[in-house]
Order: sequence, then structure tokens, then C-alpha cells
Amino acid sequence: MKFPKTYTLKEVSEIINTEFVGNSNFPIFGMNEIHVVEKGDIVFVDHPKYYDKALESNASVVLINKKVECPEGKALLISDDPFRDFNKLTHFFKPFKSASSSIAETAEIGDGTIIQPNTFIGNHVKIGKNCVIHANVSIYDNCVIGNNVTIHSGTVLGADAFYYKNRPEGFDKLLSGGRVVIEDNVDIGASCTIDRGVTGDTTIKQGSKLDNQIQIGHDTVIGQKCLIASHTGIAGCVIVENEVTLWGQVGVISGITIGKGAVVYAQSGVAESLEGGKTYFGSPATNARAKMKELATIKNLPSLLKNAKRNSK
Amino acid sequence: MKFPKTYTLKEVSEIINTEFVGNSNFPIFGMNEIHVVEKGDIVFVDHPKYYDKALESNASVVLINKKVECPEGKALLISDDPFRDFNKLTHFFKPFKSASSSIAETAEIGDGTIIQPNTFIGNHVKIGKNCVIHANVSIYDNCVIGNNVTIHSGTVLGADAFYYKNRPEGFDKLLSGGRVVIEDNVDIGASCTIDRGVTGDTTIKQGSKLDNQIQIGHDTVIGQKCLIASHTGIAGCVIVENEVTLWGQVGVISGITIGKGAVVYAQSGVAESLEGGKTYFGSPATNARAKMKELATIKNLPSLLKNAKRNSK
Amino acid sequence: MKFPKTYTLKEVSEIINTEFVGNSNFPIFGMNEIHVVEKGDIVFVDHPKYYDKALESNASVVLINKKVECPEGKALLISDDPFRDFNKLTHFFKPFKSASSSIAETAEIGDGTIIQPNTFIGNHVKIGKNCVIHANVSIYDNCVIGNNVTIHSGTVLGADAFYYKNRPEGFDKLLSGGRVVIEDNVDIGASCTIDRGVTGDTTIKQGSKLDNQIQIGHDTVIGQKCLIASHTGIAGCVIVENEVTLWGQVGVISGITIGKGAVVYAQSGVAESLEGGKTYFGSPATNARAKMKELATIKNLPSLLKNAKRNSK
Repeated sequence: MKFPKTYTLKEVSEIINTEFVGNSNFPIFGMNEIHVVEKGDIVFVDHPKYYDKALESNASVVLINKKVECPEGKALLISDDPFRDFNKLTHFFKPFKSASSSIAETAEIGDGTIIQPNTFIGNHVKIGKNCVIHANVSIYDNCVIGNNVTIHSGTVLGADAFYYKNRPEGFDKLLSGGRVVIEDNVDIGASCTIDRGVTGDTTIKQGSKLDNQIQIGHDTVIGQKCLIASHTGIAGCVIVENEVTLWGQVGVISGITIGKGAVVYAQSGVAESLEGGKTYFGSPATNARAKMKELATIKNLPSLLKNAKRNSK
Repeated sequence: MKFPKTYTLKEVSEIINTEFVGNSNFPIFGMNEIHVVEKGDIVFVDHPKYYDKALESNASVVLINKKVECPEGKALLISDDPFRDFNKLTHFFKPFKSASSSIAETAEIGDGTIIQPNTFIGNHVKIGKNCVIHANVSIYDNCVIGNNVTIHSGTVLGADAFYYKNRPEGFDKLLSGGRVVIEDNVDIGASCTIDRGVTGDTTIKQGSKLDNQIQIGHDTVIGQKCLIASHTGIAGCVIVENEVTLWGQVGVISGITIGKGAVVYAQSGVAESLEGGKTYFGSPATNARAKMKELATIKNLPSLLKNAKRNSK
Repeated sequence: MKFPKTYTLKEVSEIINTEFVGNSNFPIFGMNEIHVVEKGDIVFVDHPKYYDKALESNASVVLINKKVECPEGKALLISDDPFRDFNKLTHFFKPFKSASSSIAETAEIGDGTIIQPNTFIGNHVKIGKNCVIHANVSIYDNCVIGNNVTIHSGTVLGADAFYYKNRPEGFDKLLSGGRVVIEDNVDIGASCTIDRGVTGDTTIKQGSKLDNQIQIGHDTVIGQKCLIASHTGIAGCVIVENEVTLWGQVGVISGITIGKGAVVYAQSGVAESLEGGKTYFGSPATNARAKMKELATIKNLPSLLKNAKRNSK
């Protein structure tokens, strides 16, 4: 998430009312969560276990709860609660705005695009040419949709990331300021939910086709020409490379990568990164052929055990 | 479900045109399904197998299809079809009313609460302060929502219980007259469905956070500070105690209890009550560590069997 | 999918600009996909592997990419791309029309039927008597709904089939021109998605009851008096016979048949046709009792293996 203009370290420190370490004119271009942070960005860290990761990341500014040594060429913002102050910044730069009509005046909609009745299109949404957005779709603020995209009824683009900090007084939500980006020639079925990125983008790349009732978590990237069948759920921060096929009711854990051209059979549970070009099955998902063999072995188990016993006599 | 005023046994018997046993002035305060019945309530029973349970329950009045002996201090309503007559009462006290506008005039909405476009809010719904109800949400009649609640697009609160009696001529629906109650500081993701209670409440207690596409059945109670990930389905009459975590695509059978602080891994199927404070996995769900061991054993089965065979020679 | 009037072979060949084999006056009544094709219909085939199946089907006209010998009493349409030209015909006979209001003027709605706010009802939809269509439902063009039907909020009837041809330049969608047909006394829960047929009907027969968040694929037929629990997903071209029960989160692969009265337990994956009157469990689903036994064996595996080893010493 880039700021609308370059801010100085001092200006940002005043927004969140914190001390800083570094040149007061140190330029800041944006803010991002650790998964997608870039040079010029602020990142936040509030647990000593992750201090090094944050300090050595691409981030130029680290919002941190200890006055550590500042890495060369970087700056620090010292806060007693970096999570709270990161939220303050998100709220400052991307405040939630209520909508006064079903289709926001600030939305841009390309030529030839059809918007069916009862669909909600939020502030600053951009939709390309020759799309069909069916009835009762909800598109939250700032989402970006390419050309020749079809979105079926009931689908929700841009709801908040499911991302909470467990505090003694209750769960504290990390505010979402990111976007959903749908590239050209994507089809999205009915009643899918695609959450926006926390600070970055949740992206569905060109030519991918999604069936109904699919869940895609925040900051996840679906590659080009993927096929995803209904009721499949993909958690946040997942990378699905190009030409992957996920059959129905598959679950994918957060933070992993599914390699190019991989095929995952229905009802599988993907609990670790999968190499491309192969076929997987099971919960947890493993090589499909090995899994089939395993299932056959289990089926024959009673007779196999009987044999083992008989042989032993 | 309490009646708007106290009714007498005679008055109720006239609504449903049945005989009664007891004092005609016997006071009746409400009606409830056996799971949630309280003193002063009517309960119904139509199978001899459950007569004792109903007669010994908290119910003060039993709507029953046999003239049994009346327990002391209680009353009976004798009907040839208690299911039909219980429905008649629900229809009498909570008739379905069509809505004339997206936001019912009788709905009460607290200060600072934002209702986004295309959202439906039914009759007598109460929403607290500082909530955000996003676009295309549907909230049926009589639902109650606390303060600081967020509900994302596509979510449906208060649809009917999935509860049918199998009659020779077809399934006969038990009418739903209950409510959905969402306490303070609850977040509900996009495209969730939370059914109302048959006569009581389906409740999500304070501080709990639900991801997208979650299904919660009638009369189920989700405790405080629970975390539920997407595509999880919980059947009716379940009790999920405080601080429970259910990961994605978990299924929970009706009528059971998940103890405080339990954690259930993704894609598990909970088929019986679970003790609190432990971690579970599998379908059916069992102790996670034992399940992991089991999975490892299965993976090694071919070599284990080979060894067993070799040793036996 | 029947044409609005009888067309001649020559007329159709001019619509799609192809050569034909047969009498130019050869009458054509409609077009259908291979699963549901009838006498008088056009079918398409573009792979030599399926030539015989198409030529020997009920179809009277075969749209094909090779000038094969024409079966007696039939006709051919010769195209370099039958998939593209079948789509051209669908587009010609069932063009997508945008809607100018939430309830299309051409929709027919029976007496006593209640349509709640924010519901979309497309062109030429027919809804019978005494139905309740709750808020935020989406019903696409040409769907047909019987009498005494209840449809809960968020449900989508008639979205497109998930059916693509994998071309070098990307997935090419087979256009859907079919319908969804809901018979009398059907209840459909909240946030279900029922796709229309490619050329035929997706049908839910009388008296069946669907819970929430259920997915039904194109051209699938659900028999009479079936019970389907939430989060169950049924792929396209499935036949579910009468009085079948599918519990929650079941998945059913495309093209199979589930026999009359079968019961499938929660989270099962149905990967082949199931005989009626029996109970099934597992992924892949198998006889429930055998599966339970298998699960028990697995649980006892460590001790069974230990015994086998001990015996062998």
C-alpha cells in the first residue's frame, strides 16, 4: 500500500505519536505487511522472535516496540504497541467510507460492461471493458477488475482479512487497507468470497476460472489459467502458480506455494508447499498415486494382517 | 420463545383446537423445543420413546398425542398431531410477515452504525451502536445485534432451521420462531449463514470472530472469543464453549458440546463431544497427536507389513 | 434446449456459416449437449474419440469437425471448430440480456407468492403460487419455479455451468443456454448456488429440501424427497434418485448416479455411482459399515502390528 504522496519520517511519527530513530526527512513511500514489504515501506514487528526478520527485510522503516540498533540506511519508529499504531496508519491512509448509493460515483466502469441490478460497487473501484457483473455482487472500495471479466451473483470482492492479534481483552483486528485485483478474462462463479490484502493485493491473474462458493484469503495470488472447483478454500498469503487445477472442496493452508501445473484432487487438504507438475490427493495432500496405493493397502489390511499372523505360526 | 403476554391453558387449547388436562386458568408464558424448554413453557412430543423426557423436562405444559397421566403441577394439551399443532402456535405467535422495504420501519439501529446499500433488515431487528453492516447482507425478522459488530457482505442471519418431520406425503417443516443473537464485538465474514433458533436463540457470544462462508445451525451457541475459519459448518443445537478455535472446512454434528479452549484442525469432522483444552484432528476427529501418529503408521504400512512378513519366515 | 420454432438444416448452417450434409429442408427442433440430446436436436463433437458416440446418439444433426459418413436419417454440420459454433448457436437462440430492473417485466409470478426486497428476478422467469423468495436472492433468466417453494436469502439460481475447453490461448467457456427447474414443495436454504443446464435443465424435483450453502452443478437432477445438508457440493450431470440423503460437506463427482434411498454420511466424497438403499461413508465413499470397520482396524494398527511381530519371534 503506497501513500498518496511521499511522507517524511517526522510526519509519520506525528500521525501515530511515536518517537523515531533516523533523519527526520527520511522519505517514506508506503506501508506493508512483512509478506509483501518493499523498499521505502514501513513494516511493523512486535515480537522479539521476529525482530531480525523485520530489520533485515526490504522495509526501509521498522515500527518496533524496542529501541534496537538501527540498520544502516533505514529508520525506526518506536512504539509501545506497533500493531495498534500500524492500524492507526491504515486508518489514516485508507479510512473506511460508507457508501451513499449502490454504485459509487467515484467508481470507473469501462465501455461495454454490464452491471446487473442490486450489485454494490464501492468507492474508487475500477472495472474494465466488456465485463458482466451479475446481480447482488458486492465489490468493496478500491478493487480493480480488468477486461472481459464475468462475476456471478452473490460474490463478494474485498472483505477484510481474517487476521487478529490475541490480546488479554479480546481479539484485535489488523485493519485491511489492501485491494483485490482481478486481471483480464477471469471468470468468478456465484457466491465466492475473495478478501482484500492487508496492505497489498489479493490477485487473480489473467485467464483463471473459478467455480462457485470459493474462498480466497488475503494477499493470496492465483496465477494465470488456473481452474478452481467449487467449495475450495484457500487461506491467506498463498501463491498458486500458473495453470494449477484444484478440484472441489480442497483446503489450502496459509503461506505456502503450489507449483505450476500441479493438480489437486477433490477434498484434499494442502498443508505444505507442493512441487509443480504433479498430482496430489488426501488430507494432508500427498502424491496422488502413493495415496491411492495407501488406500488400497488399508482396504486389504484385514487380510494382510491375517496373512502376517498365519505366516508367523 | 416467550409469548407477548401470559396465556391460559384454555386460551392456548382454543388456538390449536385441542383437549386439555389441567386447570383452565393454568398460566403459560411461552413455548420451546425440548433442547431449550423452561418452566412455564409448552413443549411438544409425538413419539412414545420421548414421552418421559418431555414429561420430566422443565416444560410446564406438554403437547402430546396420548392422554397420559399428568405430572403434578403441570398440564397437558392432547393432540392427534403435536408437530402440526406446535407449528400452528409458532405461526400464531410469530407469523411470517413480508417486508415492504429494505430496512423495516420497526428496526432499531443504534448511533454510529453504518448500513451499506442493498442490505435487508427485517421487522423488529435490533442493531446496537458503532456496527458496520456491509452491502447485500440479509437480516431476518427479530434478530438482535450488539455493539461494535461487523458483518460482511452476503451474510444471512435468521434463515429457517433445517428441521423436518418425514411424513408419508413428504417432509413437513418445523416452523422457526426463534432468533439470532449476536453479542458485542463479534465479526462475521462474508457469505456466512446463521440460522435462527426453532423457538430459542442461535447465539454468537461476545468477541468471537468468524471468517467467510461459515454455516451455523439453529439453536447453536458459540461461546466468547472463539475463532472459526472459513467453510466450517456447525449443525444445530451445538454448544461451542469459550475460546474454541475451529480451522477451515471443519464439520460439527448436531447436539454435541466442544469444550473450552479446544482446537480443531482443518477439515476435521467432529462426531461427538470434545473435552476442552485439547487439540483434535481427523474425520471423525480424535486427539491430534494420536491422529498424526496414525497417519505416520499408515504411511509406513507397506514396509511394516514387509518386516512382519520377513520376521515370520 | 428447443428452438422457438422449427429451423431447417440450411437456416442453421447459415447462422454459423458452415457446410452441411443432408437435405437442406431437414427439420431441426433444438440443440443439446450429449448428456441430454433428443431426436430432432443438434449435438456437437470435436474429438475423434467421441465421434461414434455423437453419431450414434439420439441427435438428428451432428456438428462435427470432419466430413464423416452421414448416418441414415440424420444430417451433419461440418465446422472447423464445433465448440465455437455450438456457442454461436447458443448465443443466437439464448443471448444474454441485461436487466433494467430488479424484477423483470417478463417474469411471471403466481398468486400468493411473496418476493422480499433486494431480490433479482431475471427475464422470462416463472414462479408458481404461494412461494416465499427471501431477500437478496438472484434468479437468472428463464428459471422455472413451482408452487409452495421457499428460497432463502443469498441463493443464486441459474449461474453459468463451469465448463471450459482448454485452448492454447486460454480456457474457452461453453455458453450456458439451459435452465434451472425447481418443482413444487421444494425448500432451498440460504446462499445455495444451483447452476443452469448447458442446454438442458438442472432440476430439483418435488418435495426435496436443501440446507444452506449447497452447490449443485449444471444439468444435475435431484430426485423427489431428497434431504441435502449444508456445504454439500454436487458436480454437473449427476443423477440423484428419489429419497436420497446427503449429510453435510459431502462432495459428489460429475456424471454419476446415486441410487434411490441411499444415505451418504458427512464429509464423504462420492467418486463413483452408488447403489440405492445403502449407507456410505468416506472419501472416496464406500459401504459405511466396512468403512467404520476399516477405521477401527487403523486405530488398532500399532497393537496389531506389535502382535504380528511378537508372534513371529
